[in-house]
Amino acid sequence: MFRPEIKVLDVSIRDGGLINEWHFSDEFVRATYQHLSEAGVDYIELGYRASKKMFDPEKFGKWRFCDDEDVWKIIDGIESQSKLACMVDIGRVEDQDILPKERSPFSMIRVACYMKDINKAIDLANMIMDKGYESSINIMAVSTNVEREISEGLNDLSKTTIPIVYVVYSYGAMYCEDITHLVKKYKAALPGKIIGVHTHNNRQLAFGNTIQGIIDGANFVDASVFGIGRGPGNCCQELILSFLQNPKYKLRPVLQLLQDYYLPLREKIEWGYIIPYMITGNLNEHPRIAIAYRDSPDKDDYVKFYDTLTTPEPDPQLKHS
Amino acid sequence: MFRPEIKVLDVSIRDGGLINEWHFSDEFVRATYQHLSEAGVDYIELGYRASKKMFDPEKFGKWRFCDDEDVWKIIDGIESQSKLACMVDIGRVEDQDILPKERSPFSMIRVACYMKDINKAIDLANMIMDKGYESSINIMAVSTNVEREISEGLNDLSKTTIPIVYVVYSYGAMYCEDITHLVKKYKAALPGKIIGVHTHNNRQLAFGNTIQGIIDGANFVDASVFGIGRGPGNCCQELILSFLQNPKYKLRPVLQLLQDYYLPLREKIEWGYIIPYMITGNLNEHPRIAIAYRDSPDKDDYVKFYDTLTTPEPDPQLKHS
Repeated sequence: MFRPEIKVLDVSIRDGGLINEWHFSDEFVRATYQHLSEAGVDYIELGYRASKKMFDPEKFGKWRFCDDEDVWKIIDGIESQSKLACMVDIGRVEDQDILPKERSPFSMIRVACYMKDINKAIDLANMIMDKGYESSINIMAVSTNVEREISEGLNDLSKTTIPIVYVVYSYGAMYCEDITHLVKKYKAALPGKIIGVHTHNNRQLAFGNTIQGIIDGANFVDASVFGIGRGPGNCCQELILSFLQNPKYKLRPVLQLLQDYYLPLREKIEWGYIIPYMITGNLNEHPRIAIAYRDSPDKDDYVKFYDTLTTPEPDPQLKHS
Repeated sequence: MFRPEIKVLDVSIRDGGLINEWHFSDEFVRATYQHLSEAGVDYIELGYRASKKMFDPEKFGKWRFCDDEDVWKIIDGIESQSKLACMVDIGRVEDQDILPKERSPFSMIRVACYMKDINKAIDLANMIMDKGYESSINIMAVSTNVEREISEGLNDLSKTTIPIVYVVYSYGAMYCEDITHLVKKYKAALPGKIIGVHTHNNRQLAFGNTIQGIIDGANFVDASVFGIGRGPGNCCQELILSFLQNPKYKLRPVLQLLQDYYLPLREKIEWGYIIPYMITGNLNEHPRIAIAYRDSPDKDDYVKFYDTLTTPEPDPQLKHS
């Protein structure tokens, strides 16, 4: 596949930070930036921008906040054609947390939201674009929305100038047929906009579904080194760059980064194809229950986890009748 | 996806044996047979049938040979609706190694071959069917064949009564588009025959490509518990059974088997998404070079492995000129 308009955005630090509360060392983030720049990755997302009134900087690492001055330090002296991105969540950031673009190292600030909050997300993305940044809206967990909700949200989005809208495959519950349906629906409802895909690897479909999205016309794709990301993780950067066959992308720097930094980290913290996440993917459930289970003494008792999620609880009414 | 004619064949012991030279304990194989029977898996492949003149029984475990008497012992007392299968390779088995079906626990003996040996495979499958077994031909490594070779081989197969022909994705080098092309080509060239798919997980596409094959009309699919298989392994049994939505399939017994037997084994021997196999998948190379590399002190130096495979060797002619 070669389609020069496809852009790759790396989410290693941002989505990976969901596992370790963004406690990456400066060296780790700098190496990520340097190697992904060499690899030709178009955008590198360094974390979330969030209000320090809402998140305690004593508890969370600096990539929960992505302060501009921390970013300037990290990128200092590294030659790069890659653009920097960070993400904001609805209601977790305030106007004063975002400087005008001229004073910031970031090119893009992406907005994540659930479909029910789409109009709040549009307001936030408009504020971000007014400050000079590129923006996108990443609508999470659409596998839990009924078709009418999706159509309404897309209709609202179609009236905006927000250039990029993502199909986000939050619970790892979709097959290629679902991706095809959504990417085609988004494209039809949002003429002139770029469609992105962000997938999760609960059932080893993150890469396959990203390819499917590209075949169906998505031109913005998220990936992370060795698939790092909360729970099952994401589409692997090393896989998507190999698939795209664009001569600007180089696999070798990603392999170097992977073996020097991400493989050792994977030995300390887990992500990837782990059965409780496969089970929540099958059931279209948020991974939080699997994350909690992996932190319990029963973490490898998959049958018990499966039974807990699939056995109907006795109806308390019936119990007392 | 619900299509009642789809059959699932489990290759855990046969393909998994390629990692440990078929040294599975009787308890392990018996547990596999019991749990997969409970799960409703249609066929369970217990290993290869091979000539003891060609393979040393001192070196290889008993599932390299699948002697009928060993199999009778393993299945004794277990209630099962599943059929038993084993596999033979061209030139590695003799007529006298295969008893008539009435005296054997096996229902199916599958023939694996490269496209160049298709007519030898047809002869062998005919011999097997003459003895009363079901058979299939699994044409390996078609990603290395040019289109004319594939067309010729399929033409030869179309004149036979062999009922099942597999698209085998040996080097993990195919994308969903390639699977679609091949499954449609096989279907068109082999009217009345069942098409199977057997995938490898070099690039985390084994499950996704199996789904794609099913969408395109394949009705026989191979899978293994936790994806066990040589190198990158195969499509996971726990994933495909979840996808198929046929009420006869039960996920729970596979999870039990996985946590009690396959997870502990995975801690001792490796298979799955491991970067050198990703690299051989990208390059459409046999995994043997990656297997050897994983057994070397450099096993996690992915860049060195990548460089070895992608840097052209100096031309010895030039060197001496």
